[in-house]
Amino acid sequence: MEKSVIKEEIRKQGEFVRQLKLDKAEKEKIDEEVTKLLALKAQLGEDASSGKFVLKTPKGTRDYNLKQMAIRENVFDTIIKCFKRHGAGTIDTPVFELKETLTNKYGEDSKLIYDLKDQGGEMLSLRYDLTVPFARYMAMNKIQTIKRYHIAKVYRRDNPAMTRGRYREFYQCDIDIAGQYDPMIADAECLRIVYEILSALKLGDFVIKVNDRRMLDGVFAVCGCPDEKFRQACSAVDKLDKLPWEDVKAEMLEKGLTEETADKIGVYVQMSGGQELVEHLLSDKLLMTSKCAMAGLNDIKLLLRYLQIYQLGNKVSFDMSLARGLDYYTGAIFEAVLTGTAVNTNQPRIKGETVGVGSIAGGGRYDNLVGSFDPKGRSVPCVGVSIGVERIFSILEAQLKADGRKTRTNDTEVYVISPQKNFLEERMQIITELWKANIKAEMPYKRNPKLLSQLQTCEERGIPYAVIIASSEKETNTVKLRTIDTREEVSIPRENMVKEIKDRLQICKNNTDQN
Amino acid sequence: MEKSVIKEEIRKQGEFVRQLKLDKAEKEKIDEEVTKLLALKAQLGEDASSGKFVLKTPKGTRDYNLKQMAIRENVFDTIIKCFKRHGAGTIDTPVFELKETLTNKYGEDSKLIYDLKDQGGEMLSLRYDLTVPFARYMAMNKIQTIKRYHIAKVYRRDNPAMTRGRYREFYQCDIDIAGQYDPMIADAECLRIVYEILSALKLGDFVIKVNDRRMLDGVFAVCGCPDEKFRQACSAVDKLDKLPWEDVKAEMLEKGLTEETADKIGVYVQMSGGQELVEHLLSDKLLMTSKCAMAGLNDIKLLLRYLQIYQLGNKVSFDMSLARGLDYYTGAIFEAVLTGTAVNTNQPRIKGETVGVGSIAGGGRYDNLVGSFDPKGRSVPCVGVSIGVERIFSILEAQLKADGRKTRTNDTEVYVISPQKNFLEERMQIITELWKANIKAEMPYKRNPKLLSQLQTCEERGIPYAVIIASSEKETNTVKLRTIDTREEVSIPRENMVKEIKDRLQICKNNTDQN
Repeated sequence: MEKSVIKEEIRKQGEFVRQLKLDKAEKEKIDEEVTKLLALKAQLGEDASSGKFVLKTPKGTRDYNLKQMAIRENVFDTIIKCFKRHGAGTIDTPVFELKETLTNKYGEDSKLIYDLKDQGGEMLSLRYDLTVPFARYMAMNKIQTIKRYHIAKVYRRDNPAMTRGRYREFYQCDIDIAGQYDPMIADAECLRIVYEILSALKLGDFVIKVNDRRMLDGVFAVCGCPDEKFRQACSAVDKLDKLPWEDVKAEMLEKGLTEETADKIGVYVQMSGGQELVEHLLSDKLLMTSKCAMAGLNDIKLLLRYLQIYQLGNKVSFDMSLARGLDYYTGAIFEAVLTGTAVNTNQPRIKGETVGVGSIAGGGRYDNLVGSFDPKGRSVPCVGVSIGVERIFSILEAQLKADGRKTRTNDTEVYVISPQKNFLEERMQIITELWKANIKAEMPYKRNPKLLSQLQTCEERGIPYAVIIASSEKETNTVKLRTIDTREEVSIPRENMVKEIKDRLQICKNNTDQN
Repeated sequence: MEKSVIKEEIRKQGEFVRQLKLDKAEKEKIDEEVTKLLALKAQLGEDASSGKFVLKTPKGTRDYNLKQMAIRENVFDTIIKCFKRHGAGTIDTPVFELKETLTNKYGEDSKLIYDLKDQGGEMLSLRYDLTVPFARYMAMNKIQTIKRYHIAKVYRRDNPAMTRGRYREFYQCDIDIAGQYDPMIADAECLRIVYEILSALKLGDFVIKVNDRRMLDGVFAVCGCPDEKFRQACSAVDKLDKLPWEDVKAEMLEKGLTEETADKIGVYVQMSGGQELVEHLLSDKLLMTSKCAMAGLNDIKLLLRYLQIYQLGNKVSFDMSLARGLDYYTGAIFEAVLTGTAVNTNQPRIKGETVGVGSIAGGGRYDNLVGSFDPKGRSVPCVGVSIGVERIFSILEAQLKADGRKTRTNDTEVYVISPQKNFLEERMQIITELWKANIKAEMPYKRNPKLLSQLQTCEERGIPYAVIIASSEKETNTVKLRTIDTREEVSIPRENMVKEIKDRLQICKNNTDQN
């Protein structure tokens, strides 16, 4: 296009965007049209757009403000404490990998991978998950055993549904146990970890569904599903948590399964239960003909036994409809699902939204992925689980909003203030003492701030104590210590200040710990 | 090229790479040639290269193993504690920004920015630092005051010098205080933060250099340097910490300054000192003619006064040669430099390497950057400092290596073991009790592991205690608690196990805290 034509296009598009804004159109729609506008401007070269650009983050991404980060940090803290309680360490891998490392790993979804521009050198792509880089790391460093967690962002050029908490840049939070071990011991610990984390985060009631890939394959086989249709049947079964059986059956028929096969599969995959179901199936004449199914069943039996000892028996359900999307699973698979609404809200639900209900963690055993990276195909058995932290953030944010609770965005314990002018240097002396004693302290960055605004700051930020210095305190070598909540003030000799504050903070802390 | 030609090229390049490996060529050289090989293979399409790819991370990046991450986590922990002691919260921004957000921000270095491939939609680039995204965030959300830290990776397509710890993907660790405040109060706190962090990390002696951009500009002006050569003079002065004055002067002459001007500048920029130097310069006849220099000097005077109260007077030097590279500074600038070698090593230094000596933190005041993003140019004064964490990691890694100390990669407190067969379920019961009591515990993932290998695991991983269960313990409802270091074993009633272990861990902790 000629420049004049482009300029005219830009003018039109600019007007369109302005109109959308006036009409208060959906944010996503506006963003989309702004993107088109930017693309047009880019055609004119950088000069045309400089000086007057649109302030936004890339499509499908967002900033996290102090409050959102405070919530995230609390969640990560809880999760990491649990991972460490189980002896895990952490590793880190680059945010991008050689393009070929990610090739042929994600099937159809490969089109969602972000590629870097070819600026001379290697062809690179942003990581799509943490599991493939982990397997690459294992193979590259010839590691045989590891228990590691990895919390980091991954990237998918999906159509973002940001109102539902789905972004193009989002956190994954994985723990994996790799090594040649006896069956189901590590698998059971992964589920114990999920149980501890979901319990600690108080997200409401949940159930952990378990199944085994070999079990599913066995069912398909004995029901007469041809090998090449396993995957399609699997993907249909996976929808049983959202669709009624009739719809799932219809999808199977559509994919070329016979009605007889579909009905047979239907009987099996609608079963769920506990140890008694395992026993029932172990003596199922048809299923007994599949070695594969029997191997899966025996492992599930063991897993359920171990989970009983790990005291999460009442949270676990052997659910034969659980299929999990990813191709690389080879044995046990699991998924944790919230069963109640954790959101204590009086507001009406947004139509079609299911905040607080749904899959919140998932994982399984993948014994062959590391081998796929090894030139000699040497494999390292792995089992792991991924905690759906983005989901968890959304739920906790909604909870906080509904409760109307305030989230503190700092940990400040003491604010050092003065009602009089010219006490900046005295405040500085006091705050230095506090910092040296490892007390979290702030003060206004003004020479002569107003007393009222200083006290307001304490209340707004949730700072529990204020140290007050003025001429009378200076003369008597004391400070006033004010408890913000109660407005109670006591006079304290300057040399006791640190100890007095520390004692009070300790009492606060003990009270909080007991709650 | 035709396919057959490419194939021949691939064969030759493949042989070359193999030869380089046989010759044990430098890793970087091999990587480079491997990259070429991959590029050739890519021309043949994905099929040709699949199945047989090179296991590596992209050029200039690396994985962090458990040990490296343990060191990093300790450093981050120390730094974050300090940031929080000063009341800061954290925010996060996407790893990529709209390309135009980064345009015209980094001068010549803009060529080092990683761009994403145009996959339809917006033009995106990986962030190059954390300051520009911070300013974008401030302007976009119209924030007037904030005290925030941000620890995250940034990306520069520089020629990596990986042996010297310089990578294309690396951490930055920034704290910034934004708001319209009285002069130098926030600036002084930034330096107090640097002081606290460097002291806590025990990196050896250091000095914090301070200067002011207006001071430098004033000196250039009164010495007769033309306005348009300020920046070049500035960049020459910046080298005074590495080059003798003669070389810096030569560079100035080369850039078109007269000898007289250069000599005059030389007198000023070679000065350093404290409050007495400030007083001396405040009455310097020539300098007094520059409002700009006087404004800078008065702020430095104030800053030095505040730093005295903040008890880091003996660590601070007013250094008139300090220039700092970045264009956006508008007032006070600072840099912390290690003055001794912190690395307690008997190994000879690598030629030209200066591990443990050099700039370790830097920052300054930038009052106009946020305004450059605001459509109406509304500015928010900011001051901030960046801790050179990559440098710190290198030093600490070298220290640990030199000391031969072991770094634990897990926090496990108790290993649950058995000398006898068939005690897996009893171990599981015990470990569940420990986890519930928030004790960090592991056990072997084998049904019947050998006692010796279990004890070895404790020693290798630095796990302090083992709980041992066998038939005699089972009969008497006791466990044995073994202290790994001393090999002492005591028998404990099962119901006291948790309390007994917690008491011992508390004693350990108190001892460590006292050291």
